[in-house]
Amino acid sequence: MMSQDYPPTIAELTTPCFLVDILRAKLNASRMLERCENLGVQLRPHMKTHKTVELALLQTGGNKSRIVVSTLKEAEFYATNGFDDILYGCPITAHHIPRCTKLAVSRQLHLLYDSHEAISALHNSPVGDGRAWSVFLAVDTGNDREGALWNSDEAVQLAKEAAESEHISFQGIYSHDGHSYRCRGVDEVKKLAEETANKMLFLKNRLLKEGIDCVTTGVGSTPSCINPPDVFSSLSVFHPGNYIFFDYNQQFMQVCGFEEIACRVATRVISHSATGDHLLVDCGFLGLSHDGIAIQQQLPYGFCAFQDQPNLRMVRMTQELGKVEDVNGKVDFEKYPIGKILYIYPWHSCATAAMYSEYFVHEGDAVVGVYKPTRGW
Amino acid sequence: MMSQDYPPTIAELTTPCFLVDILRAKLNASRMLERCENLGVQLRPHMKTHKTVELALLQTGGNKSRIVVSTLKEAEFYATNGFDDILYGCPITAHHIPRCTKLAVSRQLHLLYDSHEAISALHNSPVGDGRAWSVFLAVDTGNDREGALWNSDEAVQLAKEAAESEHISFQGIYSHDGHSYRCRGVDEVKKLAEETANKMLFLKNRLLKEGIDCVTTGVGSTPSCINPPDVFSSLSVFHPGNYIFFDYNQQFMQVCGFEEIACRVATRVISHSATGDHLLVDCGFLGLSHDGIAIQQQLPYGFCAFQDQPNLRMVRMTQELGKVEDVNGKVDFEKYPIGKILYIYPWHSCATAAMYSEYFVHEGDAVVGVYKPTRGW
Repeated sequence: MMSQDYPPTIAELTTPCFLVDILRAKLNASRMLERCENLGVQLRPHMKTHKTVELALLQTGGNKSRIVVSTLKEAEFYATNGFDDILYGCPITAHHIPRCTKLAVSRQLHLLYDSHEAISALHNSPVGDGRAWSVFLAVDTGNDREGALWNSDEAVQLAKEAAESEHISFQGIYSHDGHSYRCRGVDEVKKLAEETANKMLFLKNRLLKEGIDCVTTGVGSTPSCINPPDVFSSLSVFHPGNYIFFDYNQQFMQVCGFEEIACRVATRVISHSATGDHLLVDCGFLGLSHDGIAIQQQLPYGFCAFQDQPNLRMVRMTQELGKVEDVNGKVDFEKYPIGKILYIYPWHSCATAAMYSEYFVHEGDAVVGVYKPTRGW
Repeated sequence: MMSQDYPPTIAELTTPCFLVDILRAKLNASRMLERCENLGVQLRPHMKTHKTVELALLQTGGNKSRIVVSTLKEAEFYATNGFDDILYGCPITAHHIPRCTKLAVSRQLHLLYDSHEAISALHNSPVGDGRAWSVFLAVDTGNDREGALWNSDEAVQLAKEAAESEHISFQGIYSHDGHSYRCRGVDEVKKLAEETANKMLFLKNRLLKEGIDCVTTGVGSTPSCINPPDVFSSLSVFHPGNYIFFDYNQQFMQVCGFEEIACRVATRVISHSATGDHLLVDCGFLGLSHDGIAIQQQLPYGFCAFQDQPNLRMVRMTQELGKVEDVNGKVDFEKYPIGKILYIYPWHSCATAAMYSEYFVHEGDAVVGVYKPTRGW
């Protein structure tokens, strides 16, 4: 490029904007790779938090391989960008098959399933070209969302159906322990992770006894993978995603410190209220998302955390305006003049990142790049 | 075009997707134009709900003129697409001036302000070319967000400062009565709208007495403009926006009926829980937004309304999955087989539309077009 298409410093960016602290993101990525290596467990990082090529490279250690995605659009985006060994992490159904077939012909694609309908649809629509569909059974270990119950006959039956189809290759079992987000503190997370792993190993052994080969046992969420109990080393793969950025939610759970959070929203003060009671920033719900708002009363800084300004609370958002009060009473407008930039740690980085079509990457105050995520379905 | 780049029917669309019922949108647009004509008040429709050229044409009656926008990106988008007489509806500050200058040279651009800093910045950065900045004072009539208080000396002082600058043309006063959204029912909305109008007329008269010409008195929100009290005919311009789509929030407020809502999200059933307690749809918070979730307990159908399925409740969303229960107990999976399409009326259409980079426009079951909104800042 002859010239960079972004301003040289954060202070010159249009607000609101989404910032990625690249040194922090690199550290978060390398620590997770190291953690998995030490445990002897593979890492299949989730892309849903950022959906960019650049951060996927960091998460895979430059290997462009073994990832999990949340949409077929992401799967296609990463395949187009040279990534391989891609798991589509939502339950597969018949209407997904045409797009999956195209992907499976060119890439190592894995699918997640939790229904007889899915197996039947895959069986009746072979990939062709001598290939089999590679599938993992989604298992519910307590998250109460997708998946067959870990201790059910149904789980065994679903595995058997896949294993018996000549058009399907049954690879093993996967469970997202999203209920780890309901834990408070490291001890609770660790205890729940141990239970999750034991449930998965129970099912694996049951399948083996039934003569069903279960090569892969995958679990993962950022809280549990950051705090792995010993039994985690008996599993074969983890699939956390949020750790690349972390967020205020993870900090609140003691999974990380504020100084590890690799993303922020920059916003400017644009109005001082006549009463002195509040100021307005140019970040409303389109710049932050409403994630966290339902439990804001339980959160120490409300539904987002202003960096180094523990006295500030975002109390209301409309589309483009955030109303900010001071917990101590009147807002000190001299400290927060119109035009001042404030930095926000979002409650949920996946939700906030999704509001932006570009991320500004920085080292300290210097902007060093722009990442463009994929979007949509 | 040789061929259309979208499937012929709704049933073939990738889900989740955002649907616009074009006949309903046309009716919503024409009714508001008619209402304003009958009252003898100008309509300056807000673009923030949809951010498309096509719906802006409907809202302006094909005139491509007199609109309000929520971001400078929108202002630039509409200017590029031939629209004129554009009001940027957030308080202006010094850092906006370079982009506003470019717009003001080619278009009739109006700015909103509520600070001395803003007037000072505009005064010190003339548009040039013999033009003056066209400004409206933002007035707080009870919404407690932006603006000078309607009965304050500060409001008069801010108007005076603008009127006295040779680089600024003071046009009048604007107030967004967003607090109308806190009303319950038509009577409350009407009463509050009357109060708002009286406050604005009070300030207008005060400015006139001070020798400040106040040509324009603008107010508006969808609830108040749908239910205008008699005194509204004494105002000069309304600026509602949401009415083009309406939503479950407006229905809840009795501002519209479900049959007037012109937008929906289409989603498919993708999983049946092993326990029978829930099903999953492929619409999570990226397909719906979290808007409404904080008050879901107070809403008759939870934070979104499934069309013609009053028994269904979205009880939890993760990024790409919505967990749906039946108020009567177990979900009837035969009634909701995997693959079935369900239609959701969002709580807040502005927030939900913003999650999509394209809207599928339909007449009945036939898809008749794709609209591409602008996004970002």
